[in-house]
Amino acid sequence: MLRHGVETLKPFFNPNSVAVIGASAKTGTIGNVIFRNFLKQSFKGKAYPVNPKYDYVQKVKCYPSVKDIPDRIDLAVVAIPAPAVLKVIRECAEKGVKAALIISGGFSETGSEGVEREEELKRIVEETGIRIIGPNCLGIYDAVTGVDSVFLPDIKCSRPPKGKIAFITQSGAFGGAVLDWLSIENIGLSKCVSYGNACDVNEVDLLEYLAEDENTKVITMYLEGIKNGRRFIETARKVARSKPIVAIKAGRTERGTAAVQSHTGSLAGSDQIIDAVFKQSGIIRANDFQDMFDMAKALAMQPPAKGNRILIITNGGGAGVMTTDACEMNGIEVPEVPEETQNFLKKHFPQHCSTHNPIDLTGDTDAERYELALRHAATLEIFNGGVIVIALFQTPLLTPVSYTHPPSPRDS
Amino acid sequence: MLRHGVETLKPFFNPNSVAVIGASAKTGTIGNVIFRNFLKQSFKGKAYPVNPKYDYVQKVKCYPSVKDIPDRIDLAVVAIPAPAVLKVIRECAEKGVKAALIISGGFSETGSEGVEREEELKRIVEETGIRIIGPNCLGIYDAVTGVDSVFLPDIKCSRPPKGKIAFITQSGAFGGAVLDWLSIENIGLSKCVSYGNACDVNEVDLLEYLAEDENTKVITMYLEGIKNGRRFIETARKVARSKPIVAIKAGRTERGTAAVQSHTGSLAGSDQIIDAVFKQSGIIRANDFQDMFDMAKALAMQPPAKGNRILIITNGGGAGVMTTDACEMNGIEVPEVPEETQNFLKKHFPQHCSTHNPIDLTGDTDAERYELALRHAATLEIFNGGVIVIALFQTPLLTPVSYTHPPSPRDS
Repeated sequence: MLRHGVETLKPFFNPNSVAVIGASAKTGTIGNVIFRNFLKQSFKGKAYPVNPKYDYVQKVKCYPSVKDIPDRIDLAVVAIPAPAVLKVIRECAEKGVKAALIISGGFSETGSEGVEREEELKRIVEETGIRIIGPNCLGIYDAVTGVDSVFLPDIKCSRPPKGKIAFITQSGAFGGAVLDWLSIENIGLSKCVSYGNACDVNEVDLLEYLAEDENTKVITMYLEGIKNGRRFIETARKVARSKPIVAIKAGRTERGTAAVQSHTGSLAGSDQIIDAVFKQSGIIRANDFQDMFDMAKALAMQPPAKGNRILIITNGGGAGVMTTDACEMNGIEVPEVPEETQNFLKKHFPQHCSTHNPIDLTGDTDAERYELALRHAATLEIFNGGVIVIALFQTPLLTPVSYTHPPSPRDS
Repeated sequence: MLRHGVETLKPFFNPNSVAVIGASAKTGTIGNVIFRNFLKQSFKGKAYPVNPKYDYVQKVKCYPSVKDIPDRIDLAVVAIPAPAVLKVIRECAEKGVKAALIISGGFSETGSEGVEREEELKRIVEETGIRIIGPNCLGIYDAVTGVDSVFLPDIKCSRPPKGKIAFITQSGAFGGAVLDWLSIENIGLSKCVSYGNACDVNEVDLLEYLAEDENTKVITMYLEGIKNGRRFIETARKVARSKPIVAIKAGRTERGTAAVQSHTGSLAGSDQIIDAVFKQSGIIRANDFQDMFDMAKALAMQPPAKGNRILIITNGGGAGVMTTDACEMNGIEVPEVPEETQNFLKKHFPQHCSTHNPIDLTGDTDAERYELALRHAATLEIFNGGVIVIALFQTPLLTPVSYTHPPSPRDS
C-alpha cells in the first residue's frame, strides 16, 4: 500500500480542502495560529477546524473528528499532543485523507516512548498509503498556494513574498528565523518545508518534488544529516542538472557534530565525506545562511554565466581592487581589456581614468562614462562571465537619471 | 625644520580656527560643501572662507588670501585646482599655519607634471615644517570635534555617529562609501582619515596619533600598499598592545595587485609577506569591510575575553550547531557543561531540552529557562571566553519583558 512519487506529495502543497486537527479558539495557541493562517485570503481552498472542545473556531463550524467533516479532505494538519496523534492519523486514513502534516513533537526526538510512537506512525504509512510530513516540524509555507502550517504568528515571524527560491530545512526553529529574515530582506520564496523527524517524506522526496515545481527555480537546503547517502546523491545529481541546489550542512566540526546528535539525532558524518557528496551531486555548498541566500538570489535572478571571464567597471579604485581579489580568489578571471578598446576609451575619458580591467572611471565620473564603458567594453565576447558594475553613489556627479514614473493610485 | 611626532598632528583634528581655501558660494561645488561642513554646530572653532572671487561665502566674510585673515589659523583645508596649490601652501607656511589638508587631485597619481608638483610639496614640508595630509584625498571626518573636510554632501553621504572606532583609508572613494554605510548601520566612529598620496603624513604617523587618541579604542585600516615596512611593523606592534588594529589589505591576488598599481601606484607586495607583516605586528586581518567592522564593533564594545572557551545558549538547535561549527573553525572551544551543572539544569528543564554545550532550551522556551542557564552555567569559570546567547524571537513564548519607559516629549 506504500505510495511513492511526486504525485503523492501534491496534496501537501495545493489542497482543495484542509482539516486543521487541534484548531483552537484560544488566541496565541498553536492550533489557533495555524487555523487562522488557512482563513487568510492567500489560501484559496476550504479549511475545516477539528476539535471536540468547540462548536465553532473563528466563526467556522468545528467538527469533533475528521471523519465527521461532510467533504473530501486533501490535507490534514495535525497539532495535538503526541499521545493522541496515532488515533487521529488512523482516522485520517479511514476518511481517505491522502496527506498529513504532523506539527506535534514528542516522537523520536524524545525518549524511547517517542521512538516507539514514531515506529507506529511508519507502520500506518506502510499500511494505509497516507503520506506524512513531520512529526516535530513547522510543516509548509507555500507563498503561491497559501498553505501555511507555520505556528508562529505573523507578528513574531513575517512571511516572505512570492519568489523563485524554495527552502527545505531539517530544523524548524531555524526555518522560522529564516522566514522572518527573508521577509525583512524582501527575498522571495516559492515554498519553505520544515520536515522535522522525516518519518515518511524526507529531503530526497522533497528534492524530487521541487525538481518538477514550476514555481521553483533554485533549491536551498539546511541539512544536519543525510539518511540515505546513495539515493541523496543520485537524486541531487539529477535535479541539479536543471535546478541549482545550494545547501548548508551543519555539524562540520567535532563539537558541531556532537551538537547535531543532541539536536536531531542525525549522524552528521565526516565533513570531507559531505564535501565529496556535494561535489558528486553538483550541490553548491554555502558557509552560512546569508551566503546561501546570496547565491540563491543570484541564481534565481540571473541567467547562468557562459564563462568565467568578468569585466569590472568602478568609480572607486579601492572597491575595484577588492572586487578583483574576490574574483580571483573564487576562480573567476579578470582579463585585460583589449588594446583597441582601451585606445578608444582613452580618447573619451580624462587621463586619470584607468582603461584596464577593472575600468576605473574615478570619483569625478558622471553617468556618461559608465555608458561608454558598458557599450564598448562590456559587450565584448571576451567577457563571457558578465559585468560587475560598482557605482559608489557618494561621488558628486552620479545623479539619478530623471524619469517620469507611471501614475500610481497613491498619486491621485 | 622638518617637524615630527604626534603633537604636530593635533591641529588637523582639533583646530581652533580653520581656513577653507577655495571656499565657494556655488551650491554643490566641493569648496561650498566643505565650507558649510565647518559652519555646522558640531564644529566649535572659527571658520574662514578664502577665495579671491567672493566678498562673502554663506554670509561669512571671505578673504582673497589666507595671509589676509586677521586671526591665527591652525588648519588650512585646500580645495583648489592643483596648479595653484603650491603657492597657497607657501602662503600658509608664511602665515604660520601648522597643518594643511590638501583635498585637490592632480599630483603623483597623474602624469610626470603631477609627480614634480608633489616633489615640490615635499620640499615645502621640509623647508617650513608645515604638516600636510593629502593631496588627493577626502581628508578628515572627526565625529568628536566636528572637523569635516569630506566634500560629499550629507545628502549623498551621511556621517556616522560618534563612537570608539577610528578608520584610516588609503582610498578616498572607499572612505566615502564606508562613512555612508557606517551611518546606515549606525556604527559609531571617532574619526575617519583619508590620506591620499601621503606626501607627508602617512598611515604610520596616523597609527601613532590614534594610539594616543582617547576617543579611539579600536583602529581600522584600508591599505593598498605599505611604504616603509619596517617602521610600519615597529609602530603597529607598539600600538596593537594597547589598541586592537583591524585591517584590510587589498591587492591579494595577481590581478588585484595589478589593479592596485593602476589605482594608487603602491607596490602591493606578495600576500604571504603581508600576512607575515600583519602577524608580526599583531594586526588582525579582515577579509572585507563588513568583516572588518564586525570585528571592530565587538572589540570596541566588549572587554577582551579572558580565554577561548565559550558557552552557547540557544532556543534553536540548528542555530546552536552552526554557531558551534563557527567557533571550532575559528579556534574557539565549546567545552562540555560540567556534570553537576547539567544535573541541576535537568531538574529544572523539560526532558526535551539539551544541557550539553550548546545548551538547547528548544522552541517552547520562555525567558525563565534563559535566566536559569545564564545564572548557573554562564557564570562558571570554565567558560572564560564568554557566552553566546542565541534567542530566535520567532518562537511563541519569548516575549519582551514589560517595562515602563521614561516619559518622552512626544508622549505629552
